[in-house]
Amino acid sequence: MRAARVPEAGADFEVVDVETPEPNPGEVRIAVDACGICHSDAFVKEGAYPIDYPRVPGHEVAGRVDAVGDDVTAWSEGDRVGVGWHGGHCFECEACRRGDFQQCANAQITGIAYDGGYAEYMTAPAEALAAVPDDLDAVDAAPLLCAGVTTFNALRNTDAQPGDLVAVQGVGGLGHLGVQYAHAAGFETVALSRSPDKEELAADLGADHFVNTDEEDAAAALEELGGADVVLATAPSAPAIESVIDGLGTDGRVVVVGVPGQEVSVDAQSLVGVRGGVDAWASGNARDSQDTLEFSDLREITPEIETYDLEDVDEAYDRMIDNEARFRVVLEP
Amino acid sequence: MRAARVPEAGADFEVVDVETPEPNPGEVRIAVDACGICHSDAFVKEGAYPIDYPRVPGHEVAGRVDAVGDDVTAWSEGDRVGVGWHGGHCFECEACRRGDFQQCANAQITGIAYDGGYAEYMTAPAEALAAVPDDLDAVDAAPLLCAGVTTFNALRNTDAQPGDLVAVQGVGGLGHLGVQYAHAAGFETVALSRSPDKEELAADLGADHFVNTDEEDAAAALEELGGADVVLATAPSAPAIESVIDGLGTDGRVVVVGVPGQEVSVDAQSLVGVRGGVDAWASGNARDSQDTLEFSDLREITPEIETYDLEDVDEAYDRMIDNEARFRVVLEP
Amino acid sequence: MRAARVPEAGADFEVVDVETPEPNPGEVRIAVDACGICHSDAFVKEGAYPIDYPRVPGHEVAGRVDAVGDDVTAWSEGDRVGVGWHGGHCFECEACRRGDFQQCANAQITGIAYDGGYAEYMTAPAEALAAVPDDLDAVDAAPLLCAGVTTFNALRNTDAQPGDLVAVQGVGGLGHLGVQYAHAAGFETVALSRSPDKEELAADLGADHFVNTDEEDAAAALEELGGADVVLATAPSAPAIESVIDGLGTDGRVVVVGVPGQEVSVDAQSLVGVRGGVDAWASGNARDSQDTLEFSDLREITPEIETYDLEDVDEAYDRMIDNEARFRVVLEP
Amino acid sequence: MRAARVPEAGADFEVVDVETPEPNPGEVRIAVDACGICHSDAFVKEGAYPIDYPRVPGHEVAGRVDAVGDDVTAWSEGDRVGVGWHGGHCFECEACRRGDFQQCANAQITGIAYDGGYAEYMTAPAEALAAVPDDLDAVDAAPLLCAGVTTFNALRNTDAQPGDLVAVQGVGGLGHLGVQYAHAAGFETVALSRSPDKEELAADLGADHFVNTDEEDAAAALEELGGADVVLATAPSAPAIESVIDGLGTDGRVVVVGVPGQEVSVDAQSLVGVRGGVDAWASGNARDSQDTLEFSDLREITPEIETYDLEDVDEAYDRMIDNEARFRVVLEP
Repeated sequence: MRAARVPEAGADFEVVDVETPEPNPGEVRIAVDACGICHSDAFVKEGAYPIDYPRVPGHEVAGRVDAVGDDVTAWSEGDRVGVGWHGGHCFECEACRRGDFQQCANAQITGIAYDGGYAEYMTAPAEALAAVPDDLDAVDAAPLLCAGVTTFNALRNTDAQPGDLVAVQGVGGLGHLGVQYAHAAGFETVALSRSPDKEELAADLGADHFVNTDEEDAAAALEELGGADVVLATAPSAPAIESVIDGLGTDGRVVVVGVPGQEVSVDAQSLVGVRGGVDAWASGNARDSQDTLEFSDLREITPEIETYDLEDVDEAYDRMIDNEARFRVVLEP
Repeated sequence: MRAARVPEAGADFEVVDVETPEPNPGEVRIAVDACGICHSDAFVKEGAYPIDYPRVPGHEVAGRVDAVGDDVTAWSEGDRVGVGWHGGHCFECEACRRGDFQQCANAQITGIAYDGGYAEYMTAPAEALAAVPDDLDAVDAAPLLCAGVTTFNALRNTDAQPGDLVAVQGVGGLGHLGVQYAHAAGFETVALSRSPDKEELAADLGADHFVNTDEEDAAAALEELGGADVVLATAPSAPAIESVIDGLGTDGRVVVVGVPGQEVSVDAQSLVGVRGGVDAWASGNARDSQDTLEFSDLREITPEIETYDLEDVDEAYDRMIDNEARFRVVLEP
Repeated sequence: MRAARVPEAGADFEVVDVETPEPNPGEVRIAVDACGICHSDAFVKEGAYPIDYPRVPGHEVAGRVDAVGDDVTAWSEGDRVGVGWHGGHCFECEACRRGDFQQCANAQITGIAYDGGYAEYMTAPAEALAAVPDDLDAVDAAPLLCAGVTTFNALRNTDAQPGDLVAVQGVGGLGHLGVQYAHAAGFETVALSRSPDKEELAADLGADHFVNTDEEDAAAALEELGGADVVLATAPSAPAIESVIDGLGTDGRVVVVGVPGQEVSVDAQSLVGVRGGVDAWASGNARDSQDTLEFSDLREITPEIETYDLEDVDEAYDRMIDNEARFRVVLEP
Repeated sequence: MRAARVPEAGADFEVVDVETPEPNPGEVRIAVDACGICHSDAFVKEGAYPIDYPRVPGHEVAGRVDAVGDDVTAWSEGDRVGVGWHGGHCFECEACRRGDFQQCANAQITGIAYDGGYAEYMTAPAEALAAVPDDLDAVDAAPLLCAGVTTFNALRNTDAQPGDLVAVQGVGGLGHLGVQYAHAAGFETVALSRSPDKEELAADLGADHFVNTDEEDAAAALEELGGADVVLATAPSAPAIESVIDGLGTDGRVVVVGVPGQEVSVDAQSLVGVRGGVDAWASGNARDSQDTLEFSDLREITPEIETYDLEDVDEAYDRMIDNEARFRVVLEP
C-alpha cells in the first residue's frame, strides 16, 4: 500500500509502498478514505513526543473496516468508521476504571504511538473507533474527528444554556466549526477574529455578532453584549486569551482548546469580580467523536476543506501548517 | 377603558367600561397590546383559587408602559413590556432571600391576585415585568410569557446537551413551542402526538422524528431511538405521562409541565433500571420570561396564534378551552 | 471447598463440598473472608431472574486475591478485594463505550450470573473488583459493597450541598448506613423511622433530627424543618415513598433506592409546587464501591452486623429476610 | 455612642463619641456585640475605594436589632443578626433581577459605602442581614460573616463530592476555617502550609493530610495523594497559586479566594492535561452568610479568635494586618 511517512524527526515526507498491516487481536484494519491534516501532526514531523520513526502521521481518519482482528465483536467488515486523536486506552488504569477513557494514563495517540491515516490502510484498536453516519462524506467526517470533537465536546460540557452569550475566539480550523456548533446549540454566538474579511463567513456559519479584534477591544465588545458566559479560545495565543478575560459576564468561563506555548497571565481580581474562571479542554474519546459526527450529521455541520492526493502530502501539509488553508486540509489516499 | 371581566365564579364574561387603574407606588400601568388566553384562565372563570370578583383574567400580557408609579426607576413610559403568570414577589421570604422569586411564598399571580390583561390597561408590580424585544410583535410575545417560558425554561434547566434525544409529548399550545425550543437548543427532537395530521407541522417546527402515539407505543418508539434523555410532558394526562417512562434512556427524565388532575403511577423498577426520574416544572420569573422572549427573537420562534377582539372574548375563550385553537388564542384589546 | 448453594428455585440451602474454581482469562479467584447476605439474594433463593441452578448466592464479598487468571495485570495474589452487585461488564456496549459500566447492557450480576460469595472461594472478572483499604475489616467491608455503595453513591450524586436538609427514610440495613453517610457529607440529617426505639441509635449514627413516622406525619415534619432537599427512600414501600413527597422543599428530590413492588402514586401538583422530582438510583460500579470503602475507612463508617458461620447459612439468611437482623448479616466462610 | 473611625485615608484610628444613627426606611439599627477585623479593612484605613471620610470600618458584624426603620417587616427588635461584606443591593439591576444579589451592580459594601461595625451601633439595609443562630456566640459569629462565608460558600459551590481530595492552601484566617468546612463536607482534606508548626492544629481542625510547602513541593505532594479535585487558595500570593496547578487531578480546580495583587501565570498545557481550571470566588450574599452560620452552628465550627476592646482598635488592627493574630481578631464594642 501507499503511505506518506516521516522517516525521522524534521525530515521531509516520503510517499512509499509499504506492507499493508494486519490487525492484531483487538484491532481492526481501516481502508482509509480520508485523513485530515492537523497542526498537531507537526509533533511527528518535527519531533516532540518520543516517536519510533519512520512514522505515518494522521489522527483524523475516516474509512471503512477492511479486516477484523481476533476478539473484536463490535465492528464488522464494511462498517464506516473514524479514528481521532484518542487512539486507544488500557481499560485498567484509575481513569479507565472510572470510565474516563479520555484521561487514560496509557492512552495511545493515533499517528504517534502507531501509524496513522496518511496511508491507504491503517490498524487501530477497536475501542478507538467511532461509527460514521451514512450520510456524512468521509472527507467531511475526517476533520470532525479532531477539530470537530474538540470544539463540540468543549462547548457541550460547559454550563452554558440556550440563549447564553458564547464567543468563539478565532475563525479558523477549530473556530469555524466552533461557531457552527455554538449556533446549533442555541447560544447567542459571537465570532472574534482579527480578520475583517471573516465577517460574512461568520454570519453564514451562524454567528449572531462579529467582533473585529484588530479594531475593537475584545473584552469591551463582549462586555457591551452583556458579558460572555463562555469564550471558546481556539487561537493558541496567550495574549489572545488574556484579552477576553475582562469580557466575561457573571460565572463566565474562558475555555482554552488551542493551547498556547506561553503561560497565560490571569488577573484574579478580574475573575473574582464575575465569579469566573479559565478552563482547559482537550478533545474527547471515541464515543465523544461519534456524538460529534452524529450531531454534525443531524444539523448538517461540515468543515470547510481543501482536499489533496496522498502524493501531494507536502503541499497539503504546508498549507495547513502555514495557516493558508481554508480551513482544514484532507488527504484522500 | 374596556375590560372583559368575570363577575363571579362560573358566570359569563362581561365586556364593560371600567375606570382606568392608577399605578400604586412600585407599580406601572401597561397599555395592553395583546393578551393570550391560557387554560389556567379557567381558574378565574370557573373559580378555583380564592378570588375577589369581579376579576379581569389574563397573564400573557404584552404592551407598553403607560404610566409609572412612585419608586419605580427600572421602567419608563413607552417601554415595551410583558407580564406572565409570575405577577410579583415579596423580596423578603425565604425563597426571595435566596433570589428564587419563582418560589416566593407570597407570589402574586397576574389576573388572579389582581386584574390582568383582558383589558385596555392594567397595572403590575415593576418586578413582574419583562422587556419585550423591539422586533417581536406583541401578539407573538403574549403567549410566550406563559406557554413559552414554561417550555423554554423547563428545557434549558434540564441536563440535556446538544445532540441528546429530547421528546416533546403533545403538539399543542405548549408542545408546538417546546418542539421549536428543543430544536433550537440542538436536541435531537421527537414529537409525540396522537394526531397523525400533526406530523408535517412537527417537522416544520424542527422535529427530527414524529411518533403517532395512537398507533405506536410511545415508550417502544423512544427506546428504538436510543432512549429519551428528556421527555417534556405538556399534555396534562396521567396515562400519557405513564406511557413514556419506559422510553427513558440512561439518566432520563420526564419533565412534567402540564400537570394532570390525577396522580401519576410510577414504576420505580423502570426508573431504577435507567437511573431515571420524574420531575415537575412550573413557569419562571420575570427575567426568565425576558430570556424566553430574547431567545425567541434571536431564533425567530413564534407561536401559532388566532387573534380576537376583546369584544369577542367568549368565542376566543371557548376556542382555547375546547382545544380547538391552533394553538394559542390572543386578544387584542 | 465448602459452599452454600441453592439447588433449585425455592429449595433449602445445601452446604456442600464442591470443586474450587479456577479463574478463566480475565478473572481472579478470591479467597472469601466475608460475604454479606442481602435481601436481593432472595432472587436466587426463590427464583426470579433466569438462573442456572445450583447457584451459590452472595454479592457482598470481601476477601483476598488467591489466584490470577491470564491477561489480568491489575490485581496480584494477596490483594485485598471486594465484589458487589456489579459483577462485570462487556466494555463494548453503548453504555460501556460511554464509560458508564453500571448501565452495561451485558452486565453480570455477582451470585446470579455466576457463583458468588457464600463459599470459601469464588471467581470474578477483574473489572468487577474493588480494592479494600488496609484498615477496613472484611466483615465490615462486605455489606458496604452493596448496602454501602447504594446509599453513598446515591447521596453523593444528588445536588445536595453541605448544610442541606437530607432525610433518610428507614433506619435499617440501608438506612443506618445512609444516615452515617449523610452526616459525614455535612448534610443536616433527618432519620425517618416507624420505630421509636431507633431514635437513640439514629442520633449516635449522626442524625440531627428523628421523626417517628408512626406518630408524626413525615411530610409535615419535614416541612416544619424547612422542606427536604433530598429524601433517600430506603424502605421498599410505595406508601412510605408517597408519604414524603409533600415534605420536599424547593428543588427537592425523593431518591428511591429501595424499590417497592407496587407502583408509586405521584401527585404532580405537589412536585410542581416545589419544582421537585422522584428519582431512582441503583448501586454503582466497582470503582464506586472502592470509593465507598475508601470514604467509609476515612470517616470510620461501619455497618452494624451479625456474623455467622457458613454452615449456619439458613439461620443467617432467615434473620435477614425476616428483617430481624440488626442490621446486616455477614457469613464468614 | 463610641465608634472607632478613620478620619482620612492613611490616618490613625480615632475612638470618639458620635451620634447614634437612626435607621432610614428599609434599614435596621444594630447594637453591635462583636465586629471582626478583616484584611480588607485596609481599604478603608489606607484608602482604596472612593470613600467618604470619616468612615467607621467593619464588615464582620454580629449584634442585635436595636431599632427598625419604616417598611421593614422581616426583622424585629431583639433579633440576633449579622452583616458581612455584602451590605445591600438594589433589587433592580440585571443581576438582582436574576436573584444574584452577590453580583448586584449597585451593591453596597458594609463599612465602606456606609459606617460599619467598629462601633456600638450601626445601621444597615434589611436585605443585608443574616439571622444568627441562638447557640452561636457573637464573637464567633462575627468572623464567619466574611472569612467563614467566603470559604464555606466557595467550597459548597464546587463540584467536589464527599471523599474527593480537597486541599486548603494556607492555614490562617481563611484557611483554618476552610479546613474545618472541608472536613465537615466529607472531603479528604489536605492542609498546605509553609509553617510546620501548623501540622497539629491542622489535624485538630480535621485535615487528613498536612503538606509543609516549605520542604515539599505542593504539586508533587498533591499528585502523590491522587491529584486534587479542588485547591482552595486562601493565600493571596500568585506564586503560591501557581505552585499547586500541577497538583490538580482530573477535572481539578484551583479556587482562588485570596486575591493576589500580581497576575497568576497559568500553564494551559498543565490544565489541559487534567481538563482543569482556575476559578475565583468572592464571599456571598446575606442568605449565604446565614447558611454559613447555620452550618457552623450545626457542626460546631468556630474561628480561632483574639478579642479586643474597641478602645484598643489600633493594637487589634495591627495584629491582624501584620498576620500575627491567631487567626481572626474581634472587637467587642
